[in-house]
Amino acid sequence: MGEFELLQTIYDASKNLGCSVTIGPGDDMGEIVLGGKRLLLAVDQLHVGRHVELDCAPEAIGRKAIARCFSDIAAMCGFPVCSLMTACLPTPCDDQWATRVFSSAKAHAEQWGGPIIGGDIATSDCEHAMFTVTALATPSEIGAVKRVGAQLGDLVCVTGELGNSIEGHHLTFEPRIKLAQTIQHTLGVDLHSMIDISDGLAQDAGHLASDGCSIQLDASSLPLRSGATIEAALGDGEDYELLFTCTKQPPIDDVTVIGNVVERGDSKVIDEAGNAINIRGWAHE
Amino acid sequence: MGEFELLQTIYDASKNLGCSVTIGPGDDMGEIVLGGKRLLLAVDQLHVGRHVELDCAPEAIGRKAIARCFSDIAAMCGFPVCSLMTACLPTPCDDQWATRVFSSAKAHAEQWGGPIIGGDIATSDCEHAMFTVTALATPSEIGAVKRVGAQLGDLVCVTGELGNSIEGHHLTFEPRIKLAQTIQHTLGVDLHSMIDISDGLAQDAGHLASDGCSIQLDASSLPLRSGATIEAALGDGEDYELLFTCTKQPPIDDVTVIGNVVERGDSKVIDEAGNAINIRGWAHE
Repeated sequence: MGEFELLQTIYDASKNLGCSVTIGPGDDMGEIVLGGKRLLLAVDQLHVGRHVELDCAPEAIGRKAIARCFSDIAAMCGFPVCSLMTACLPTPCDDQWATRVFSSAKAHAEQWGGPIIGGDIATSDCEHAMFTVTALATPSEIGAVKRVGAQLGDLVCVTGELGNSIEGHHLTFEPRIKLAQTIQHTLGVDLHSMIDISDGLAQDAGHLASDGCSIQLDASSLPLRSGATIEAALGDGEDYELLFTCTKQPPIDDVTVIGNVVERGDSKVIDEAGNAINIRGWAHE
Repeated sequence: MGEFELLQTIYDASKNLGCSVTIGPGDDMGEIVLGGKRLLLAVDQLHVGRHVELDCAPEAIGRKAIARCFSDIAAMCGFPVCSLMTACLPTPCDDQWATRVFSSAKAHAEQWGGPIIGGDIATSDCEHAMFTVTALATPSEIGAVKRVGAQLGDLVCVTGELGNSIEGHHLTFEPRIKLAQTIQHTLGVDLHSMIDISDGLAQDAGHLASDGCSIQLDASSLPLRSGATIEAALGDGEDYELLFTCTKQPPIDDVTVIGNVVERGDSKVIDEAGNAINIRGWAHE
C-alpha cells in the first residue's frame, strides 16, 4: 500500500472531526479555522540516505528539510508563519554535524518567512539521521488553492523546469512561495487548483484529476531542465515546481502551459492521443 | 551534549525572529500570535524500542504517541485544537500494524480534543518504527502558564502519583489537560509556573528554578505510585504529571504540596536539609 492509500485508510473515518477543519487530509496542507482565522498546517520528513545522499553537506540537509515542507506552503498559495523541527540522530551523536544541519535549517526557515520556534531532538538506533519539519502558514484573503477544483477546459500550467532534479536542483531549489502568491494575485478566482510536483509530473498531475475530468499533457511543451528527457520530466521526482489549472495563462515569466483539463476518460493523466501516461514517478514509500 | 543543551545552542540566535513569537524554544510549547489570537505549538517523537517495548500493542503505541505530546498542552494549561502525525516505518512495511497504530492515535487525539488533520508516512532502513506528533492548542484567556515564573515563597505542587511508571502508567496515563485547566481556573494569577514531569521529578523541577530561586522538595511528602520508592519518585521518567508553583494550595483532589520555592543556593533542586538532589532522572538522549 502506498503512502497515499495508507493515509486515506487512516483518515477515512475522519470526516466528522468536531473541530473547524476546512481542508482535511489529502491536500498539500490541512486547514483549520481558529478564532475566525484560517491556518494551514503540514508536516514532512527528510531521511538522510534516502532524500539526500549520505555524504551530503549538513547545511544542504538542513536547507532541504525546510524547503521540502515550505514547498507545500507554496502549493496552497500560502504565507509562512513559523515552523517546528525534530531530529532523530544515530548514536553516537555528532553534535557538530547536527548543529550545522539545524543552523542551516534555522537560517532558511527565517529567510523564507517561517522561523523555527520549537523542536525535539532524540537519538536512536537508526543508521542515519531523520528530520521532520512542521510548517504553519496562512492563506491569502481569496483563500488557499486546493488540489481539487480543476474545471473542464482549464489550462494546465507548470512553473520552472522539470526532470533531472537529482543533478542538483533538489538541493538548491527555492520553495515557490512568492511565485505562487503572484500567480494567485494575478489570476484570482480564475486559478482553480494547484499542487507542488514532488513525486513526478505524471503522478502528481493525477491528484488534480477528478471523477469528472482528466489531465491531458502535451509532452512536446514540457519545459525540460538541462539534461532531462521528456520521460524524465514526466517521471522524475523532486522538481518542487507548481502544477496548476486555470482559465487563462497568467502573464508571468517562468510559467508554461503544458496541457488541458478534458472530460474524464479511463485514465487520470493522458497524452495528446488520449492514451494513459503510465509513468509511475517517484514513490515516497 | 543533552537535548536541552543542543536545542539551546541551536536557538540561541533565535531571539529576533521577526514574527510574533511570545514563548520561544525552551518551554513545553512555543507560542505565537496570529491575527491577534495566541496559538501554542509543540512536537514530540515516539520511538518503538525506546519509549515503548518492541512487543507493545500497536494500539498502546498510537495512544502514547498522542498522549506524550498532549501532555505538553496540559503543561501550558492549554486547550487542544488539532494535531499532525508522521510515521517512519521499517521495510517491509506491515500495513495492518501501522493502521492499528494510527487508528488508535486518531481515536485518542479526537477523544482529547485535538483531531489529527494531516500527516506523512515514509518507509526507511530503520530497525523499528518512529512517530512524531505535532500538537496545536490555544491558551486560556489568562494566558499560558510557562516554566519560568516561580516566586520566592511559592508552594511546589504535583498532581497524581510519582515513580514506577514503567509498570504500566506510561501506557495508560491521561494527559492532564482538564486538571490543568481546573488548576488555572481555580488559582488564577496565583499560579506562577508549570511543567509536566517527563524526565523525572528531580530533573524537571530544575526547569522551574531560576537565577533567583531554588526548588526545595520534601521527600517524605511525595505521593508514591504503587511499588515506587522515594528515589523512584525523584528519578523515574514518564510520570506525565503536572509540577507547578503557586501562592496557595488549590482545593483540588489529586494535588499534593511537595515543597517550596526558596532563595537560590548552589543547586537548583534541594532536599529538606538544603543539599542538592543529584538524581539525574531519565535523559531523552
